[in-house]
Amino acid sequence: MKSICGVEGVTAWGLKEGKFGLALIRADGEAAGVFTTNLMKAPPIRLMEERISRGTLSAVMANSGCANAYTGSRGQEDALEMAAIGAEALHLLPEEVGVASTGVIGRYLNLPLIEDQCRRVAPHLARTDEAEVLAARAIMTTDLTEKHSLVRRETFSVGGITKGSGMIAPNMGTMLAFIYTDAEVGAQKLREALKSATRRTFNRVVVDGDMSTNDIALCTATGKAGHVNPQEFSTALEECCRALAIQIAEDGEGASKLLEVTVQGAPGEEEAATVAKTVVASPLVKTAVYGADPNWGRVIAAAGRAGVEFDPDRVNLWMGDGRESVPLVTKGEIVVDLVRAKALMQGKKVTFTLDLAAGSSKATAWGCDLTEKYVEINGRYTT
Amino acid sequence: MKSICGVEGVTAWGLKEGKFGLALIRADGEAAGVFTTNLMKAPPIRLMEERISRGTLSAVMANSGCANAYTGSRGQEDALEMAAIGAEALHLLPEEVGVASTGVIGRYLNLPLIEDQCRRVAPHLARTDEAEVLAARAIMTTDLTEKHSLVRRETFSVGGITKGSGMIAPNMGTMLAFIYTDAEVGAQKLREALKSATRRTFNRVVVDGDMSTNDIALCTATGKAGHVNPQEFSTALEECCRALAIQIAEDGEGASKLLEVTVQGAPGEEEAATVAKTVVASPLVKTAVYGADPNWGRVIAAAGRAGVEFDPDRVNLWMGDGRESVPLVTKGEIVVDLVRAKALMQGKKVTFTLDLAAGSSKATAWGCDLTEKYVEINGRYTT
Repeated sequence: MKSICGVEGVTAWGLKEGKFGLALIRADGEAAGVFTTNLMKAPPIRLMEERISRGTLSAVMANSGCANAYTGSRGQEDALEMAAIGAEALHLLPEEVGVASTGVIGRYLNLPLIEDQCRRVAPHLARTDEAEVLAARAIMTTDLTEKHSLVRRETFSVGGITKGSGMIAPNMGTMLAFIYTDAEVGAQKLREALKSATRRTFNRVVVDGDMSTNDIALCTATGKAGHVNPQEFSTALEECCRALAIQIAEDGEGASKLLEVTVQGAPGEEEAATVAKTVVASPLVKTAVYGADPNWGRVIAAAGRAGVEFDPDRVNLWMGDGRESVPLVTKGEIVVDLVRAKALMQGKKVTFTLDLAAGSSKATAWGCDLTEKYVEINGRYTT
Repeated sequence: MKSICGVEGVTAWGLKEGKFGLALIRADGEAAGVFTTNLMKAPPIRLMEERISRGTLSAVMANSGCANAYTGSRGQEDALEMAAIGAEALHLLPEEVGVASTGVIGRYLNLPLIEDQCRRVAPHLARTDEAEVLAARAIMTTDLTEKHSLVRRETFSVGGITKGSGMIAPNMGTMLAFIYTDAEVGAQKLREALKSATRRTFNRVVVDGDMSTNDIALCTATGKAGHVNPQEFSTALEECCRALAIQIAEDGEGASKLLEVTVQGAPGEEEAATVAKTVVASPLVKTAVYGADPNWGRVIAAAGRAGVEFDPDRVNLWMGDGRESVPLVTKGEIVVDLVRAKALMQGKKVTFTLDLAAGSSKATAWGCDLTEKYVEINGRYTT
């Protein structure tokens, strides 16, 4: 098992037919969620914001192919109906079923298809390798890979699946993410831990700076593993979310390389994150990474417009491939060995570490390069 | 004449040799400037911020090919020396000469080349069609076209040239812009008018969201045309700057279409501008425009993350080609005629008008589509 089915009390199944997929995940437990901050929240997001306040969930049902976004009052009724369809198939109450949608904006849900897919998925719910893979696959849209994470601790586990490849932006990182733990955690604690983990992981991924209307991360704690150390749980949850966030960045639309930017020596963690996200989001940095061009000037110029005070003459900058790194700038002086730097940019991962020399805080952000493929994918999405 | 040489009291000349160009513009007058707000201001910007406070200029000398940015104290000495070179050639004091640089970051100026080019340019200074074209060409980097604007009023003129194609972002629009008027305007009034015009024109162009280290707009008033109505002057200056700003957007790196987004019905002008710039900067909107895809969902989703409050169920959205337009969304309802909308997107200009139904203010922003060519240009810039 590599994700949700590694967690006690979770069963799943999924189905993908062309662009249209449906995943069902069954797990009774305390539940918490974080949601997009886009003003144009999709109806399923509005519904879940309301329902998650109950603090428990018994199942999650997610469809791909249609986001049920910008669909007005009919969209709200459709989201309610979708939860009812899931509830009927699973013999639950509608309010015990979480719903999420992803795909094209501005189209109504095909409820007969969802009902049909739900009826075919429900009987298969299982706790197997195949089950979690099918569930993760069912929620993919422009994703090329399914995304799993499983963090095992001595007494409990945290596992999650996610999807997301485009419309990936800095606030509530994007995407659907369904995370489970068998640790016994109350809804309030779960909410705090999820919020904190999201801030440091999903919200630090930038693929294209476009914030989705449908972002949602749900975490359910089945409690099967009993009481755990809260700090240990938070750390494990963050580790799980980080692994999922990095997979989203790696699978960014058109991406050929993962871009990881760590900013250290910042006056505060949020300042460090702001600078890191600005660098990760810069089209000029992204294209330089694509072209394997160690263009420290673009990194520094992006950092300079992030709105965080630092002294350009004191900064240090390194570049690497995740294993090895070379200095590009030392105390404001350019020291780059171009041949060696270029050689380090040939792989699947490029890292920049920028020391602002303006404090002692640190943060990392993830993104990907910008390639012709991104343009191709998004120039022809709805056609 | 189509730009600066249409203004009384201005002479110019320029020279471009491969990547390296030099422009000289001679005009005595009151002067004002606006500058990049990037923390990593290039030495020539720092120098000009200081010198412009004198309130007069007699000449501007600009080089392309090297930005003299991130070059530390040597860069500062080089900027001073560049002004001295110009002053010697023009028989002026160094502080009477404005300097500007554009090109690759992190390289030192080639002062012997600049001195040599300056000596060859200075004897040709003239007030002719050829002169303004050569000056505009001399400052181009990745630009494909020279950019001119001339606004004629009954008693005075305002003319300008500009350059800029990449690293074009929302704060001090980017670029070099040299604007001249023969109107008699004091330095203080000139500063106010330039600031206001810049806010509404250059600062509303977004090509890639990357703010340059070298942005500068300088405006010199020769006074040859005598006293003018201040309001009429401000309007003419804004018209001149707008024409230049639109040319920058049209010539955005890799652009195949100009994108013009007008937001109306906003609570205030700055709110309208924020939403317009967010839509113009959205990679998903930009790629949809490239693909001639009337994807109103991406426009609305981008508007929704701009941080301005409005009611999604009340918005109206139109799309057009600058001559004709069709509704896409009316009072929150999708009304798009896909065939007609797609047909309108085949030309060189795509406009969106978004009515937030949340006030009575309005603003326009300009950008361009995102194409494979942008990636190609920036994946291989320094190599």
